[in-house]
Amino acid sequence: MFSENQWIKIKAPATVANMVCGFDILGFAVNSPYDEMEMKWTTRAENEARITIINIDNYNLPTDPEKNVAGAALIAFLEEYEEKQKSSSPKIKFEVKINKLIKPGSGVGSSAASSAGAVVGANYLVGNIFSKDDLVRFAMNGEKLASGVKHADNIAPCIFGGVTLVRSIFPLEIIALPSPTLHVTIVHPQIEVRTSDARSILRQQVLLKDAIKQWGNIAGLVAGLMKSDYDLIGRSLEDVIIEPVRSILIPGFDDLKLACKKAGALGGGISGSGPSIFMLSKTKEIAIAVEKEMKQLYDGIGLPHHTYVTSINQTGVEIIE
Amino acid sequence: MFSENQWIKIKAPATVANMVCGFDILGFAVNSPYDEMEMKWTTRAENEARITIINIDNYNLPTDPEKNVAGAALIAFLEEYEEKQKSSSPKIKFEVKINKLIKPGSGVGSSAASSAGAVVGANYLVGNIFSKDDLVRFAMNGEKLASGVKHADNIAPCIFGGVTLVRSIFPLEIIALPSPTLHVTIVHPQIEVRTSDARSILRQQVLLKDAIKQWGNIAGLVAGLMKSDYDLIGRSLEDVIIEPVRSILIPGFDDLKLACKKAGALGGGISGSGPSIFMLSKTKEIAIAVEKEMKQLYDGIGLPHHTYVTSINQTGVEIIE
Repeated sequence: MFSENQWIKIKAPATVANMVCGFDILGFAVNSPYDEMEMKWTTRAENEARITIINIDNYNLPTDPEKNVAGAALIAFLEEYEEKQKSSSPKIKFEVKINKLIKPGSGVGSSAASSAGAVVGANYLVGNIFSKDDLVRFAMNGEKLASGVKHADNIAPCIFGGVTLVRSIFPLEIIALPSPTLHVTIVHPQIEVRTSDARSILRQQVLLKDAIKQWGNIAGLVAGLMKSDYDLIGRSLEDVIIEPVRSILIPGFDDLKLACKKAGALGGGISGSGPSIFMLSKTKEIAIAVEKEMKQLYDGIGLPHHTYVTSINQTGVEIIE
Repeated sequence: MFSENQWIKIKAPATVANMVCGFDILGFAVNSPYDEMEMKWTTRAENEARITIINIDNYNLPTDPEKNVAGAALIAFLEEYEEKQKSSSPKIKFEVKINKLIKPGSGVGSSAASSAGAVVGANYLVGNIFSKDDLVRFAMNGEKLASGVKHADNIAPCIFGGVTLVRSIFPLEIIALPSPTLHVTIVHPQIEVRTSDARSILRQQVLLKDAIKQWGNIAGLVAGLMKSDYDLIGRSLEDVIIEPVRSILIPGFDDLKLACKKAGALGGGISGSGPSIFMLSKTKEIAIAVEKEMKQLYDGIGLPHHTYVTSINQTGVEIIE
């Protein structure tokens, strides 16, 4: 165990789920933005709270552990932790300070960063007794609280880093996929797209011929990443099922995508359920040119927005003591 | 150009399309069975036939080039070849002898072997002026004749060897996927499943949640092949969309699959549209044990059958002068 009553610092990266054609299965972590957290453990007296959450940002997120995504993840963590402990062991509690730098609702895994950061931090404090797969399982309880669905496509890359494949949810199976250097440009138009709305507009049935196109692209994308074949990655970043439906929720989507590709982006699309849009590029120069196109388009229609020029993060949640 | 009036010998391997979860996109070539062919070119007089087909097996397949899959592929080949030639160049004709060792209708790419063998042979005779992608395009005309659909999931591995991904048909894009050593057991129960029937019973709509499972498995299979991760390959060999529908056409399918996996097979399923069933194994010993299970099951229900124990062929169609 790490020393009692000693704070650790945690960096929890933003993540991009779906990666265009890989709805519900693919995702990757980015180097910015990221949440900052601090955590410590102390011995807990009988009847004392097991989790204390302190927000040091201005988002006014709930601090009741059962209503906070980091709290929900830590509850799942502590349940299994306490089962593993001898009955004679001292009970512990966690204090968590959260400084959210990833704007909630932006579509780049803000809730996943809190959930994943909390359980990676907790695991570090108790001596890393759980596997990364276990941590994903705990953190998914945060996603369940945030969106109603226990999905792992943000949690997995947040914890593993890099590009991850969630091959199966039950049983949970996560596969780290190697990838070449990829620069990422993200634009967050300041509109609200609720994950539950973005999910409810999807058709529950898809045409077999579209599904075949989609799995051709997914296979192409995985092969492209593993072969470091940028052109193949670019050609495979096509979604014939989800994007045509969801993109209507995002103003200027089609024009923006076209302009970014003209500027040299390999491809991209909606980040998670939106409203953020991401683009992948081979060089930082192209990623900056892509940012310029994004700004120009949203300035042109007077829509406030934030942009990030970053790259794929290969480490996932990091502990800085 | 290769010498006029000199026969070359061609080996065209059998192929397994779909590879369980990769309907219409994945396929691989095997070392046995294979078709044997011979081909030569000669100068053609005006009004003389451009293609002569001679069957030296007992299947009585059509010898009219327009009704023979190798003929249909060669017609497409010659059209582009003649376009490329100067008008002053001598016109050529091909003679093709086909010894079919891959039983037509067995579901292991018998028509693809004839089409692919013919165009690879023709390309060799004219000095290899066409790319493999071009050859796939020509050979797909044979598939169109055989099944009504220009599919490439047998043609591509037959020409490229190994495991191939058809990421897209229009425009055609084939990606060779590296794979570890894999032993293949095939059983061909002597029943007739027509490709057109096997296609017509498929539902044109699939549930989104099934499609998501399927593309998780496809991504897992591609990653498993490229990482040489046998367990991941095994877990990913699952088809929740096509197999549940098509397997009802094949007697004993579920029991056979279960018995083969118990004997140590990584997994497997219907080869193409059936009726053959294939299983992948890590070692030759397991592949032989799997064959024993197959024989036992079909002997038990009195269904005549053929089995093959082979491995993935990495070269595709071969020319033996």
